[in-house]
Amino acid sequence: MTHEAGIPLGIRFKLLSDSPQDSAAQVVSEVVVGDHRDLDTLREFARGCDVITFDHEHVPTEHLRALEADGIPVRPGPDALVHAQDKGVMRAKLMAIGVPCPRHRIVSDARDVAAFAAEGDGFPVVLKTVRGGYDGKGVWVVDSVEEAAEPFRAGVPVLAEEKVDFVRELAANVVRSPHGQAVAYPVVESQQVDGVCDTVIAPAPGLDEELALKAEEMALGIAKELGVVGHLAVELFQTRDGRVLVNELAMRPHNSGHWSMDGAITSQFANHVRAVLDLPLGDPRPRARWTVMVNVLGGDYPDMYSAYLHCMARDPQLKIHMYGKDVKPGRKVGHVNTYGDDLDDVLERARHAAGYLRGTITE
Amino acid sequence: MTHEAGIPLGIRFKLLSDSPQDSAAQVVSEVVVGDHRDLDTLREFARGCDVITFDHEHVPTEHLRALEADGIPVRPGPDALVHAQDKGVMRAKLMAIGVPCPRHRIVSDARDVAAFAAEGDGFPVVLKTVRGGYDGKGVWVVDSVEEAAEPFRAGVPVLAEEKVDFVRELAANVVRSPHGQAVAYPVVESQQVDGVCDTVIAPAPGLDEELALKAEEMALGIAKELGVVGHLAVELFQTRDGRVLVNELAMRPHNSGHWSMDGAITSQFANHVRAVLDLPLGDPRPRARWTVMVNVLGGDYPDMYSAYLHCMARDPQLKIHMYGKDVKPGRKVGHVNTYGDDLDDVLERARHAAGYLRGTITE
Repeated sequence: MTHEAGIPLGIRFKLLSDSPQDSAAQVVSEVVVGDHRDLDTLREFARGCDVITFDHEHVPTEHLRALEADGIPVRPGPDALVHAQDKGVMRAKLMAIGVPCPRHRIVSDARDVAAFAAEGDGFPVVLKTVRGGYDGKGVWVVDSVEEAAEPFRAGVPVLAEEKVDFVRELAANVVRSPHGQAVAYPVVESQQVDGVCDTVIAPAPGLDEELALKAEEMALGIAKELGVVGHLAVELFQTRDGRVLVNELAMRPHNSGHWSMDGAITSQFANHVRAVLDLPLGDPRPRARWTVMVNVLGGDYPDMYSAYLHCMARDPQLKIHMYGKDVKPGRKVGHVNTYGDDLDDVLERARHAAGYLRGTITE
Repeated sequence: MTHEAGIPLGIRFKLLSDSPQDSAAQVVSEVVVGDHRDLDTLREFARGCDVITFDHEHVPTEHLRALEADGIPVRPGPDALVHAQDKGVMRAKLMAIGVPCPRHRIVSDARDVAAFAAEGDGFPVVLKTVRGGYDGKGVWVVDSVEEAAEPFRAGVPVLAEEKVDFVRELAANVVRSPHGQAVAYPVVESQQVDGVCDTVIAPAPGLDEELALKAEEMALGIAKELGVVGHLAVELFQTRDGRVLVNELAMRPHNSGHWSMDGAITSQFANHVRAVLDLPLGDPRPRARWTVMVNVLGGDYPDMYSAYLHCMARDPQLKIHMYGKDVKPGRKVGHVNTYGDDLDDVLERARHAAGYLRGTITE
């Protein structure tokens, strides 16, 4: 999707990919298949690149520092990206700059977890490995000291957090360029199912204007303080008492910003590309009253193409974005966007299409 | 741009290109460099393709028939495409189905041209080679029998046409799928400079609703009668006495439809891809009150990238589409789109950006 956004600007991508079957590898013309954890591979790949960016956070921080030392611009840079790679570093930094977070502590065993619970409202407690988590992986909600043993088995440091009593989840997406220009997308509502993002509504319905502004300012502040270059997604909890707390950070175009491909004047992907190249940023404002994104998860049908017929015929305004991934149950294999003036209608159209593509709706 | 539109649907393109420097060859991952006039090349290329389509009309009709005979779907098919390849065939067919055209005749020498002129309002007369013309090439406006000799030198049949006393040029863009579904984009105004499309305004300002409807119906009728599959652009003259006459046909996404990339719910490229695959067509309606497209022609600067800084900073809503072509004076190397509620403002923004990219505006 980043490549797609680069085409109109004549930006040529070279891709380092785990496999030739990767989504991006199917559409980018210059692909190097290799391991992003291997410094020699990265160095060889980086030769001749004007700038390096990412669609995930898993390149080791120290390798990025080595590339920078070689004189290759890395955007976002390792000093910023580490906050999206390591939840311990992220929490410490956010606290230091005064950003409200859930109560949390690095814990070293189940007894530690019990102590952390006792200091607050008791169990349940959320445990997260500080590195490597994704879409609910590496996250446990534990109800007792017995259950708390599991997360420590991987030997990775574990972060304990209070289970926030939230009304809903929000996301504030911002983009920042090297010379400090920044833009904020409208704050969206993000609905999760089984720990995986399912639906995003832009803008978040009924969100108090003051709270929306506060969330945007908070995201812009984090981007600035952390020296982010490119897209920053700040996942937020909206609490019952009208506050927002930071849940997670992502430093790349993010699922909570996919709506912008069809719903904003400039998409998150286009603005990420602009920021990485230090070009002036595009207008992030919405083009429609409501835009809804629903993820398409892998379901019963290995081939979703035949479902296009029904979905496109039923809704000529529907925007389908499939990633060319092998369909596996529960895997994010695409998303749909819809927009319009009537939120119920827009939601129904997006959910119907996503459900039909997955195979959970058959009429 | 067609590849760009195929990415979200997971459509994989294989490209036959004259050169690895071609615009499309820079972004499509599977590229075969070869001559589209050579049947063996075409046959080898077509192996394993589900369907073949085009971004120009220059593949010889008889080769397309051979591919069809081999069982490869060609869309648009040769029986339709010939009307966009050969202006003599096009005029004969349009007359046969009752579509209003300028007065015309195939002529064989300058004396024939003089006779044609004498039967009408005299000189000037427009002469066109029936094949191979493009962007004003292969077209002459002659004022005397002496000037009329030039077009015959190439040895290609020549079509004489009256020089229509038009108010402005319009274009009606439609898309038709194999099972007969068709959609019509709003009729646009197309402004030419030196025979090359410069500005397109969607929809055509102040166009009488009845005439607009008539033009759309005419284009849909032509698509049906000619058996077009994919995008059909019908270039029109709007005459002083309130009629529309057909100027040219193009059977592919067309310059007069580039506005739709940012201005319509479904772009001409997305609908062309859908039609070629016999998928239901997307909504062609505009997303903004006015959308303006201005072509970027090659100018004084071989590298237009530095102009991005000014253009993007001046207008965060601007949409730049560059084709990755070598910059040569007067060559179409990209276009810009702008949209909004105020036509004067939208026009000014698009013209400024295109002029700045070309180098004719420097403030």
